This record gives sequence, structure tokens and C-alpha cells, in this order.
Amino acid sequence: MPIRVLGVDPGLTRCGLGVVDVEGNRRATLVAVGVAGTVAGTALDARLLAISEAIELWLDTHTPDVLAVERVFSQLNVSTVMGTAQASGVVIAAAARRGIPVALHTPTEVKAAVTGSGSANKEAVGRMVTKILRLDEMPRPADAADALALAITHAWRRGALGPGHVSSAGSASAGGGPVQGGLTAAQRLWAEAEAKAKRARR
Amino acid sequence: MPIRVLGVDPGLTRCGLGVVDVEGNRRATLVAVGVAGTVAGTALDARLLAISEAIELWLDTHTPDVLAVERVFSQLNVSTVMGTAQASGVVIAAAARRGIPVALHTPTEVKAAVTGSGSANKEAVGRMVTKILRLDEMPRPADAADALALAITHAWRRGALGPGHVSSAGSASAGGGPVQGGLTAAQRLWAEAEAKAKRARR
Repeated sequence: MPIRVLGVDPGLTRCGLGVVDVEGNRRATLVAVGVAGTVAGTALDARLLAISEAIELWLDTHTPDVLAVERVFSQLNVSTVMGTAQASGVVIAAAARRGIPVALHTPTEVKAAVTGSGSANKEAVGRMVTKILRLDEMPRPADAADALALAITHAWRRGALGPGHVSSAGSASAGGGPVQGGLTAAQRLWAEAEAKAKRARR
Repeated sequence: MPIRVLGVDPGLTRCGLGVVDVEGNRRATLVAVGVAGTVAGTALDARLLAISEAIELWLDTHTPDVLAVERVFSQLNVSTVMGTAQASGVVIAAAARRGIPVALHTPTEVKAAVTGSGSANKEAVGRMVTKILRLDEMPRPADAADALALAITHAWRRGALGPGHVSSAGSASAGGGPVQGGLTAAQRLWAEAEAKAKRARR
């Protein structure tokens, strides 16, 4: 039974949305990908309403088992981070209202999981997402590819921790979970990236 | 016909909620006040769900004409500002889904509107809220009093701009609106505070 993950790269201008089905053997298949958002200068309430309606529609249409969202850090671009955080709040609450579990992953974790390098650029992430999902061309814009990368990251990491387990370190809770043995090189990298991120969060 | 304003001081730990009815002559009456929130360490999705359920309940119960929310700045405490922004996103989207207008006010605007000084402390704001609403004691915690101050600020400022007008400078839109004459000393102060905040936003 594959796990279906909805990945969301939150933002007011471009909120990336990507759904993948991932088998126990890590084989990942694209279900849907797209972006929601509004142009800058639109009223904030209208912008958040657009995000709200998009996430509700995607949750209704694709009924994911879990929502994977990018963890927002305040160190990012000050002029956009507030809107990004507000959008992520809307997205997380929409899943929570339906009882769908929410997992948070840092950009570093996602890059490491799909490319093997926590410092990979957007182009490299997009190329690997294209390859992993066996697509003919790279999903555009980058926010859409990022959303797919988030979904793949979550499913793979869950697999690394054994069937049926969602690591509490990657869930929306504040706790941390142990990383088990038998990791691939890429998985080791994200485990390290995550351990670093957890230390930074303390 | 009084205007009914729901003021919200967003936060994950304590989200202040206050409803006031304000007459055209600026007389303000308490309708309801309270706080929602969850303890630190609770999973983020559960925390945002609690905020979501609280705002939905307050919107259902009190059917406000407008929602006034504190404008979140990224310059605030880095460790809490992301959660505050996420909570504010949930609150704003809830009003937007119901077609209720949303107005944003800075803490400086609120302090100036209710106390006459944009640098007033929380105690002074709480005292003035108590006096304005003719209460026997100060609403606690401070987040609850801040929510009421936000609601009063919004209603008063709307009054200063003439009946039926909501200043676009105070709305969730990016635009700015002119401030008309005939202001009280406190209103002049907030007009100045707002002009300063608008300049800072550019």
C-alpha cells in the first residue's frame, strides 16, 4: 500500500503543491503538482483566502495520508517571511482540521534527501525530482518542484524508520526521534542535517 | 447602529480575543473577552488547530462586522514570531472565508489610540481599556486586554474617518488612505504613528 503525501512549499505569491504516491520500496510516482497564490499588492486577507481555498481543494481532491510542509525559519528574507509563515499556518490548520498528520522538514533536510547534498541548489533539486518521479521535464516553477521534493523526503524518511513509523522529529511536534541504522548515503546526510537543525532549534 | 469588532492579538500560547460594540459617538461596550492557546511543546498542528477552532467559535458566536488583528513584524522576538505569524494567518483566513473584512493595526497605533502615547506599556493600555469599557477590573491576561484595545482602535479610527469608511491604510490591503481633520489628541497621535509605520513599511 503506497503512502500518499501532499507536499507544500508555502508562500503568498507562489505556494507550491505536489502530491506523490510512494511505495515501500521507495518508488515514487507523481499524482499532481501545481501552484497557488496571488500577486503582490493584493490584500493580505484575500491572499490567505486563496491559499486556504487551494489547500482545501487539494486535500479534498487527493486525500493525502500526510501533509509535509517546509519548516519556516525567521532567518529568511525579512520582507517575505511573515507572509510565508502566515500561509504555512493556514495550510497546517487545514490539515489539522481534517485529522491529517502534519510533518515539517527543513530545506536542508529536503535537499539532502533528494540530492544527497544539504547545500544543493534549486536546479539540482528540480533535476533529481524529475529523475525520481520519471518525468519528461522538470516541474515549474521551482516552488512546485520543491513541494514534490518535500513530499518525497517525507515518504523516504518515514520508510527509513520502518513501516508505520513517522519520526516524531519530523512531525509537527517539538520532540525528537531516533534515526535507525541501514541508511543510504543520502539518508545519512539528511539525518546529519536534521540533527544539526534540531540542535539549532534548542 | 454600533459596529461590532472582534480584536485578535495572535499567538500560539495565548491568542487574545475581544469583542466590543462601538457607537458612532465612540462609546465602546464589552461584549466578550478571552484567550485561546496551547502550552509550549504541544505539536504545531494541534496548536494551530486550537487557534482555528477558537476563532471559528468566536466568529460564529459574536458575528462581528470586522476583524482587527495585530500586524506582525519580523523584528519581534525571533523564537516566537513564526508561531505568532502562523496563528495570525489562521485567524485572518477564517474571517476571509466568511467574507468578514480584516484590518491590521500595529502595536504602536493601538497604544496611541487608547492611551494617547504610542510608547505606552501594557499596564497603561490595560488601564485605559478598563476605563474606556467601564469595567470593574482590568481584563487578564494582557493578551486579552490587547485584543480589546485592537478592537477599540479599529472602531475609533473608522469613526474618525467618517461613517461607513474603513481606512484602506488600516485594512489588510497594501494601499494607504488619507486621514481627515477633526481629530482628538489621541487620534492625532495614532495618525502620526501610523504615518510613521507606513513610511517604515515602504
